[in-house]
Amino acid sequence: MVVMADASSFFLISSPQHGFCSITSSDLGCTKYASSCGMHAKAHVATRTGVMDWRMPHSSIPTTFRKPLMMLNCKKKGLELVSDLGLGSFVKDGFVFRQNFYIRSFEIGPDRKVLVENLMNYLQETSINHFKAIGLFHDGMGSTPEMNKRSLIWAMTKLHIAVDHYPTWGDVIQIDTWTVTSGTYSMRCNWMFRDSKTDKILARASSIIMMMNKKTRRISKIPDEVQAELKQIYVDTQFIFEDDTRKWSKLDENTIDHVCNGIMSVPMTIMEKYELASMTLEYRRECRKEDVLQCHTYVLGKTNDGIVDCDHVHCQHLIQLEVGSGGGGGDGDEILKGRTKWRPKYEKC
Amino acid sequence: MVVMADASSFFLISSPQHGFCSITSSDLGCTKYASSCGMHAKAHVATRTGVMDWRMPHSSIPTTFRKPLMMLNCKKKGLELVSDLGLGSFVKDGFVFRQNFYIRSFEIGPDRKVLVENLMNYLQETSINHFKAIGLFHDGMGSTPEMNKRSLIWAMTKLHIAVDHYPTWGDVIQIDTWTVTSGTYSMRCNWMFRDSKTDKILARASSIIMMMNKKTRRISKIPDEVQAELKQIYVDTQFIFEDDTRKWSKLDENTIDHVCNGIMSVPMTIMEKYELASMTLEYRRECRKEDVLQCHTYVLGKTNDGIVDCDHVHCQHLIQLEVGSGGGGGDGDEILKGRTKWRPKYEKC
Repeated sequence: MVVMADASSFFLISSPQHGFCSITSSDLGCTKYASSCGMHAKAHVATRTGVMDWRMPHSSIPTTFRKPLMMLNCKKKGLELVSDLGLGSFVKDGFVFRQNFYIRSFEIGPDRKVLVENLMNYLQETSINHFKAIGLFHDGMGSTPEMNKRSLIWAMTKLHIAVDHYPTWGDVIQIDTWTVTSGTYSMRCNWMFRDSKTDKILARASSIIMMMNKKTRRISKIPDEVQAELKQIYVDTQFIFEDDTRKWSKLDENTIDHVCNGIMSVPMTIMEKYELASMTLEYRRECRKEDVLQCHTYVLGKTNDGIVDCDHVHCQHLIQLEVGSGGGGGDGDEILKGRTKWRPKYEKC
Repeated sequence: MVVMADASSFFLISSPQHGFCSITSSDLGCTKYASSCGMHAKAHVATRTGVMDWRMPHSSIPTTFRKPLMMLNCKKKGLELVSDLGLGSFVKDGFVFRQNFYIRSFEIGPDRKVLVENLMNYLQETSINHFKAIGLFHDGMGSTPEMNKRSLIWAMTKLHIAVDHYPTWGDVIQIDTWTVTSGTYSMRCNWMFRDSKTDKILARASSIIMMMNKKTRRISKIPDEVQAELKQIYVDTQFIFEDDTRKWSKLDENTIDHVCNGIMSVPMTIMEKYELASMTLEYRRECRKEDVLQCHTYVLGKTNDGIVDCDHVHCQHLIQLEVGSGGGGGDGDEILKGRTKWRPKYEKC
C-alpha cells in the first residue's frame, strides 16, 4: 500500500480530479528547517525551465533542475549508511534521488517476475529516503517542521503506474525520483524505473499527494510557510507522461461485475494469461482497521466471460465500504476507484 | 511464506516429528558439482567438533566449522554485486553466511516495528543467497545438480522462530545463517538475527527442510550422491536453541476456538496488547492455488475471552483445507499446525 503519512493509520482520501498543473519557478528561499540541519543558508538560483520526456534515454534527461543546497550539507548527519546499504543518493545536481533495489526471492510471482505491489513498495521507500536525505523531513513520513506545527500530513490521492517490462528475481533496478509542484493543494512525485545493467526503462509512475489535517482528516491547502519549505525540493521542469485522463466508464448490462469480499477480485482468467500494463488508482476516502470492504472488478467491452483473445483487457475497479467500523464512513462509500490495462503475457497467448 | 523450492507451487508438506540429530562429521568429498564451477577439487579437512550456544555473545561463536573450499573459488562467478548491494558474504572461515537488511518503511506495523512475516522473508532470502554464493545450487531454489537429476526439491517442514526484540524501521539487522546435517531425511538451517550496531541478539530461528520428489510430491530420503554434495556446507557443530518439543494440547470445552476463512484468525485483543514472542510451524501437506482454507486459533488456558492480564498468552493454530482445488487434498486435511507464545507489548499492559 502506497501511503505517505503517519504509520498509525492508513488514509485513502477523496481526491478532486487533478490534471497537470503548470509549473512556476521562483527563487530558492531558506526557512526554519535550515536550523534543524545545524546551519543557516540562503541562496538564489537562476530560474530555468526544462522538459523531461520520460520516454527519452537516460542520458538525455535535461539537468535544468534547481539545486537544493540544504541537503548537501545535511548529508553527514545520520546518512553514513546510504552508500553502504543502497539507501540511495542524489544525482543530476542533487535534484533527482536514486536508489537501487535487488529483486528478492519473496517479491516475485510464480513466473519469477516482481509483483506490482512490490514496485509500489519501492516507490514509497525511494520517496521516503529522498525526503530523509534532504534533511527536511524528520518524522520519517515526509512531514516538514511547518507541517508538524499545523498537524498536517501527506496523503496520496492518485497514483498512476505503467510497467513496460517486469524485472525478475535477481535483477537490480534503479529508481529515480523527483518532485514537482502541483498547485496550491498538492505536490507531484515522479519515479522512473530502469534496469541498472542495461539502462532500459522498465516502468514509470507519478502520484499526486495532498495535505491533510491529521485531526480532522480533511484536505488542506498547502500553507505558504510549507510551500516555502517545499520550494527547495521542486524540480523546475515539466515532464511528459501519458496521464490517465479517462473517465469512469458507464456500466451497462453487458459489463461483467466480479465481486468479492477482500481485496482480490480480478478474474483468474485475466491473472493467468495477462500481466498488468498500467494502473491508475484514486484514493477517495480513508478506510480503517476493521472496516469491511467489498471489491468490484468490471471487465470492460466484453459481453461474456470468455477472455481468451490476445487483445489488451481493460478493467475498472471499485473498492467500497461494506460495513464501516464507526470511523465516519457510511456503508457503500467509495474507498478507491481504479482502472487497469492488461496485456497478454505471451505474444501468442 | 517461507518455502524453499521451485516457485511454481507452494508446498507445505507432512513432517515426521524431528528432534535434534547427533551430527557426525566426515571428510569433505568433491563430486560433480565441482565442474559446474569450472574446476575440480578434492580436499580433506580434519574433523573437529564445536558447540554453538546461541545465547553466547557474537565473538564467542567457535570457529570450528569445516571450510567449504568450493565456494571460495566460485566467488568470482556472478557474485560481483554481493558486497555492493548487501547480498551477503561469508564469515567464520566461510561456514557462516551473513547478510544485512535495512528495515524498510513497508515492512513495519503501526508501532514501526518489523512484522514477523518480514523476518521470515529475510530467513528465506539469506538462505537462498547463502546457497547461491556457495555455487552449489544453480536453479535459485537450492537444488543441487544431483537433486535436479532426480527431480528432488527442498520443502520446509518445520520452522521455529523466537524473537527477543523486534527491530524498528531504519534499523539494520545482521543475519547469520548456517546449515547442519539432520539425519537421512532432512537438513537443518539456522539463523541468528543481531542488531548490526549493538550486536544485541534480536531473534533466533531454526528449520527442518526435507527432500521431496517434484513429481510425486512425496518425501524422499536424501540420496547418497546428494549427501556427498551437501557435506561441504554442513557446519560441524551442535548448537543450543530451546527447541519446541511441546505436543499439541488436547482441546476441551474451555478452549476458545477462533475460526476464520482466510489466514488471519488471532483475536484482535491479542494482536493489540501482545507481541509474538515465539512461533513453531509444522507444514503438514501442500496447499495449492484456489484451495479454500480455514484457520483456527485456540487460545489455551483461558476460560473466557477476556485476555486482559499481563501474562504470556499461548495459542495453538490449525490451518485446514476447507475445499480442495482437486490437487489431491481432502476436505478437512491439515495443512499447518502451529504454536505461538505472546508477551505483553508493554511492561504494564
